[in-house]
Amino acid sequence: GFTQVPLESARSTKHGVHRGMSSVTIPPPACMLRPLEAPFRYLFGPGPSNVPPRILAAGGRPIIGHMHSEMFGIMNDIKKGIQYAFQTSNNMTLAMSGSGHTAMECAVFNIVEPGESVLVAINGIWGERVAEIAERMGAKVHTLFKTPGGHFTNAEIEQALAKHKPVLFFLAHGESSSGLVHPVDGVGDICHKYNCLLLVDSVASLGAAPLLMDQQNIDILYTGSQKALNAPPGTAPISFSERACHKMFNRKTKPVSYLLDMTHLSNYWGNDGKPERKYHHTGPVSGFFALRESLAILAEMGLENSWSHHTEVAEYLWKGLEDLGLKLFIKDKDLRLPSVTTIAIPEGYDWKELLAYIMKHHQIEFTGGLGPSVGMVLRIGLMGYNCNKANAAMALAALEDALKQCRKSKA
Amino acid sequence: GFTQVPLESARSTKHGVHRGMSSVTIPPPACMLRPLEAPFRYLFGPGPSNVPPRILAAGGRPIIGHMHSEMFGIMNDIKKGIQYAFQTSNNMTLAMSGSGHTAMECAVFNIVEPGESVLVAINGIWGERVAEIAERMGAKVHTLFKTPGGHFTNAEIEQALAKHKPVLFFLAHGESSSGLVHPVDGVGDICHKYNCLLLVDSVASLGAAPLLMDQQNIDILYTGSQKALNAPPGTAPISFSERACHKMFNRKTKPVSYLLDMTHLSNYWGNDGKPERKYHHTGPVSGFFALRESLAILAEMGLENSWSHHTEVAEYLWKGLEDLGLKLFIKDKDLRLPSVTTIAIPEGYDWKELLAYIMKHHQIEFTGGLGPSVGMVLRIGLMGYNCNKANAAMALAALEDALKQCRKSKA
Repeated sequence: GFTQVPLESARSTKHGVHRGMSSVTIPPPACMLRPLEAPFRYLFGPGPSNVPPRILAAGGRPIIGHMHSEMFGIMNDIKKGIQYAFQTSNNMTLAMSGSGHTAMECAVFNIVEPGESVLVAINGIWGERVAEIAERMGAKVHTLFKTPGGHFTNAEIEQALAKHKPVLFFLAHGESSSGLVHPVDGVGDICHKYNCLLLVDSVASLGAAPLLMDQQNIDILYTGSQKALNAPPGTAPISFSERACHKMFNRKTKPVSYLLDMTHLSNYWGNDGKPERKYHHTGPVSGFFALRESLAILAEMGLENSWSHHTEVAEYLWKGLEDLGLKLFIKDKDLRLPSVTTIAIPEGYDWKELLAYIMKHHQIEFTGGLGPSVGMVLRIGLMGYNCNKANAAMALAALEDALKQCRKSKA
Repeated sequence: GFTQVPLESARSTKHGVHRGMSSVTIPPPACMLRPLEAPFRYLFGPGPSNVPPRILAAGGRPIIGHMHSEMFGIMNDIKKGIQYAFQTSNNMTLAMSGSGHTAMECAVFNIVEPGESVLVAINGIWGERVAEIAERMGAKVHTLFKTPGGHFTNAEIEQALAKHKPVLFFLAHGESSSGLVHPVDGVGDICHKYNCLLLVDSVASLGAAPLLMDQQNIDILYTGSQKALNAPPGTAPISFSERACHKMFNRKTKPVSYLLDMTHLSNYWGNDGKPERKYHHTGPVSGFFALRESLAILAEMGLENSWSHHTEVAEYLWKGLEDLGLKLFIKDKDLRLPSVTTIAIPEGYDWKELLAYIMKHHQIEFTGGLGPSVGMVLRIGLMGYNCNKANAAMALAALEDALKQCRKSKA
């Protein structure tokens, strides 16, 4: 700290701006003179998940400048780590300075021009959000719709592509609001047949369920830092295929957001091949430190191991839930998202009461539904660092206790 | 950690999505199997500044959920901390999940509707950015222009307001690209006379130079986390007056960005008076922990003390620079930004060479100009935690050494 300077040393000046020094009227708030407090929680909802000490330590390191050469080296590492996690060789691979929604807006803002058609598969909240984003920026939005838990056949997708001729088709691979992992095989090929780009959301699924950006012909893929990657929320990996780059770098109009303009972001990330990186915005240095660490952990473990491991723990959890007499919301095992399990709300229970009991007595977060699935499901997420049988057993024990106690309180 | 699962346990399924488990072709990148490295640097540029251990520790704490009641408590603390730092009683006070540019876009996107007029004072990079943002979203942009180092009289501002009848006028209080602190007294009143809202950027000045949002009749004020507040980059305090709220909550069109829509953000921050907070996006939990700590440090020290202290250290630095024979870029002492000092590039020197020498031999970051001031100035920032005479002396010694060595290498 430094010595406090007496108020008398304040100068008043001819311009008046400094006269304010004696005009402070709002006192320091009492709450800010108390230390920060945050309880320990088992974050077994759909994310954020608990951050392992190694990633917390990386994010807590002294920072360097956002434009230092060493920072560009760290960003290059992040780019390579994302290329591995996405299984892509796309040069146009980077992390957004924001959460998954930032990546979602970035994709729509850069790919679509006002007046162009967009097709959005809505079977939960994420499609709803993309439709809203596309509508606001002036796209013609067409939708394919299923209630939560539903999924789309390739034939249904092809029919809609043929009818609406969109420039972009959106599909959520990990539909965390319903607990569904959507089939992606063949969808990219169908899109390309109709001269349409394929945008996929893997926020909830990356690292937990198999996804291969290049082999599955996905044009734009994004995820979040705070799910199976276990970094704090605030950064979002994204990648664009050459086909997507061709569309977004040959637009007639500028994207509506300066902050999310890929012309600038691709320079900031050194992806545009230009020798000099220009200042665009100040990236979240600590967030990038943490993201790099989370991608390193995934690279060390290996993608296949991470996928198998999530499936194994999920199957253990699913069996335990059925043993408790609960019904899984997604009937078909192969369509269940291994990272986020949805349970049909058991009859005779108030889902809010169950969640509150578990939070209060077990310090565990589960959540209810989200958007259209509110009131339909309870959700348990075991992702990355949180994904192990010990945590699954703890989750099951908490749920068993809640099912006994909350029923009792109703009787 | 957990045990690695052999690949043979991978299941293939009828939907094909799981078949990818045996198709991984891109191996883990070698760079990600090495630990994160970042050198120690004295961040004496215009920001980010060094983050004190106390704030690093807060940002490195185990996280909780973005929608937990304790998180809302922390966000309430942050709101009060910002109200104090801004000297405002505005209810509509919150932190953006992003850097200062996010706040800039949020202000323009929410206040202005397409086709409306905006007046932007450009005397450095920040006005240029606001003009670009407003143009992209469809505003009619008018500008007031000065070369870097220049400022605007209230008469000049009034003349332009009368001529262009804008709904919003932008002014940078801390013009960090030129090192200017702009007079604000009276500007709000003039704006209101012409039914215009006043938007002020205090990214580089908050906590360093006096600014009183309510008393100076500022309608929208924002800052960044990484300057005198000393938190890592990635969050940005912002506040809206009642007059600004009236305009932005009575628009005919929706703001172009869903992510930055204040209707949703005001609910997320509990400012809209509704009993339930709905999920909008996942806020940067660690970033908010760090921001709360930085605002607490400012509350403990007191605003007046912080202002006086920055002035005292800046004057010590200015005297030292003049003793080295250097010329300060802003002649009028009262218009010099205490947090970021600009030095005219001394004759006979290559500014890039000076900066590279100081970085290499002293581990200190100074910077050159930014945007229109590139090639005009060197910049030294001493903000918050970095603002003390010991650091000023270190900066002066490094510069003295560089002036000797770099001249020598030219001879």
